[in-house]
Amino acid sequence: MRRTNKHTSCYLVAAFLSATILVSCGGSTGERSATKGVVQDGTEATTVAGANLLPSWGDSAAKDAIVDFVSRVTDPASPDFVPEAERIATFDNDGTLWSEKPAYFQLMFAVDRVRALAGEHPEWKDKQPFKGVLEGDLEAVAATGEQGLLELVMASHAGMTTTEFEEIVRDWLLTARHPELDRPYTELVYQPMLELLDYLRFNGFKTFITSGGGIEFMRPWVEQAYGIPPEQVVGSSIKTKYEIRDGEPVLVRLPEIDFIDDKEGKPVGINSHIGRRPIASFGNSDGDFQMLEWTTAGEGARLGVLIHHTDAEREWAYDRDSHVGRLSRGLDEAEDRGWVVVDMKDDWKTIY
Amino acid sequence: MRRTNKHTSCYLVAAFLSATILVSCGGSTGERSATKGVVQDGTEATTVAGANLLPSWGDSAAKDAIVDFVSRVTDPASPDFVPEAERIATFDNDGTLWSEKPAYFQLMFAVDRVRALAGEHPEWKDKQPFKGVLEGDLEAVAATGEQGLLELVMASHAGMTTTEFEEIVRDWLLTARHPELDRPYTELVYQPMLELLDYLRFNGFKTFITSGGGIEFMRPWVEQAYGIPPEQVVGSSIKTKYEIRDGEPVLVRLPEIDFIDDKEGKPVGINSHIGRRPIASFGNSDGDFQMLEWTTAGEGARLGVLIHHTDAEREWAYDRDSHVGRLSRGLDEAEDRGWVVVDMKDDWKTIY
Repeated sequence: MRRTNKHTSCYLVAAFLSATILVSCGGSTGERSATKGVVQDGTEATTVAGANLLPSWGDSAAKDAIVDFVSRVTDPASPDFVPEAERIATFDNDGTLWSEKPAYFQLMFAVDRVRALAGEHPEWKDKQPFKGVLEGDLEAVAATGEQGLLELVMASHAGMTTTEFEEIVRDWLLTARHPELDRPYTELVYQPMLELLDYLRFNGFKTFITSGGGIEFMRPWVEQAYGIPPEQVVGSSIKTKYEIRDGEPVLVRLPEIDFIDDKEGKPVGINSHIGRRPIASFGNSDGDFQMLEWTTAGEGARLGVLIHHTDAEREWAYDRDSHVGRLSRGLDEAEDRGWVVVDMKDDWKTIY
Repeated sequence: MRRTNKHTSCYLVAAFLSATILVSCGGSTGERSATKGVVQDGTEATTVAGANLLPSWGDSAAKDAIVDFVSRVTDPASPDFVPEAERIATFDNDGTLWSEKPAYFQLMFAVDRVRALAGEHPEWKDKQPFKGVLEGDLEAVAATGEQGLLELVMASHAGMTTTEFEEIVRDWLLTARHPELDRPYTELVYQPMLELLDYLRFNGFKTFITSGGGIEFMRPWVEQAYGIPPEQVVGSSIKTKYEIRDGEPVLVRLPEIDFIDDKEGKPVGINSHIGRRPIASFGNSDGDFQMLEWTTAGEGARLGVLIHHTDAEREWAYDRDSHVGRLSRGLDEAEDRGWVVVDMKDDWKTIY
């Protein structure tokens, strides 16, 4: 329980960007339109089916490694061939499929939600951490520690039915805008990763999200954004309870952590929801380390990829010292482990 | 926690068939070969695509209701049309896809496992409930109550890695035989339900198992038996822990209940793993009541089906008074709720 609270509050601590608190933790979550990659008609010579589905990827060792892996596992004549049913690929979300700066987008949601609910909770005016959120006093919020931050999550994510929460998330995404880029959050998904998802599916892969973010925060929008259906989303969760209200069955979201899908939790979540080991995993932070470790320790051809945020001009540049999406051990060990590191600045022609 | 233990031990109490203990609870789990239904080439006039995939179903109101439902949700011109991505169908396993008498097959596994491990546990000779299992004294086992029964589950299902457990289950299924029918358990899957699974998939449905049985007890064999991949299996679970052993990552199965996928738990498990409400659900006991309730309360065309065990000659006949797969409330309310009740004796030409 202690571990649970600690991990959960990571998202919130990170959200408030308190420079005095250094926390490394995994991901959380937000929509976009283009699911289908653009299929170019052979203007580029390729040896692998669908490799021309990656127009936003520049020529690089990273792209070559990905295409080579896909070539080997899909070629029936290759010793590395993998039957289609076992071509499972898992993707972290925050920082891997969409941006996560200045804070996890799900945190922006939590803050907006607390503000929206303040009218129904007059007591929040005098009670931390809500008082701090309402007054924009993030130091006061941070001072409430993990317990206070957990209260924020529960106040914004629990107490309603699953159907109601889905509507709340959808409505928020329609109006909320990124504080710095002034665009809907769902426009901040990475074009090269959309192409990669399509490319893998074109080659018989089943693509899953495996995020530290809330599973029910992601499901309302990821099908449209990434072409990944709700049943292929793994994430952190709170408990739900089945009950009959006014003669109708509902699932009520309870203020109690069920599962934290981060770090050592990622292989656990993968086992619980997917039930077989992926052959390819994609992440961007040390919260993804164990997922890549689990995936690449399997027998046969395996692919582990880390997206390295190196582009301060077009996106954000951060790694070892970042409060959000910290990447340190992954950078240290990637080479020895044979993991591919994608340099966003050099390897991607387009970001969004 | 109390509720958890109670549900878990249901399986074991039922297993031992103690006539003095009346427990109603959901399912648990075993393999078979034929996944693909036999497609007949139009010898039977049908208006619905693939309805000739149901050769083991006699003409009946139950079959008509199923075919009519599928017709309506797959016809783009129908007001009840459902897009393919939303055609989710969930199936209980024990008593719905395969037999569950004289006790849940997973219980037979637990008992066999305790016997196999007895050499490593000399203390079991003098300690209940193990002593009772080893001596065949089921009354003594039942007398240990829920706590004793939970000990049996944990002794047989926990303490090994997920990979090891998968091999244990596979090995058991290769040699174990049903005590009365003297056949491998995986030959006790219902032919009409195999055809129904194929028929639904032929019509764009995604088929899931949603069983009270152990999720990791089912996954090793259900893909071959039913054509349902591991990632489409929902069930009861114990917790797992990620750790590094001798430099290799493993997931260790812990002696701690994680989730019980029975009764009110079934909609919770569906929400957690699938993330959208099914449009069709199939069960056979009151452990499936809430799943059918949840499914059929949704908007638009919905299908709820209960398999009624009425065939004492070819299988077993039981319902309201059975310790395993008790069906009472379902029978009382099926008509009012518009649920289809399949009479195994009259509606099925073949059982296995």
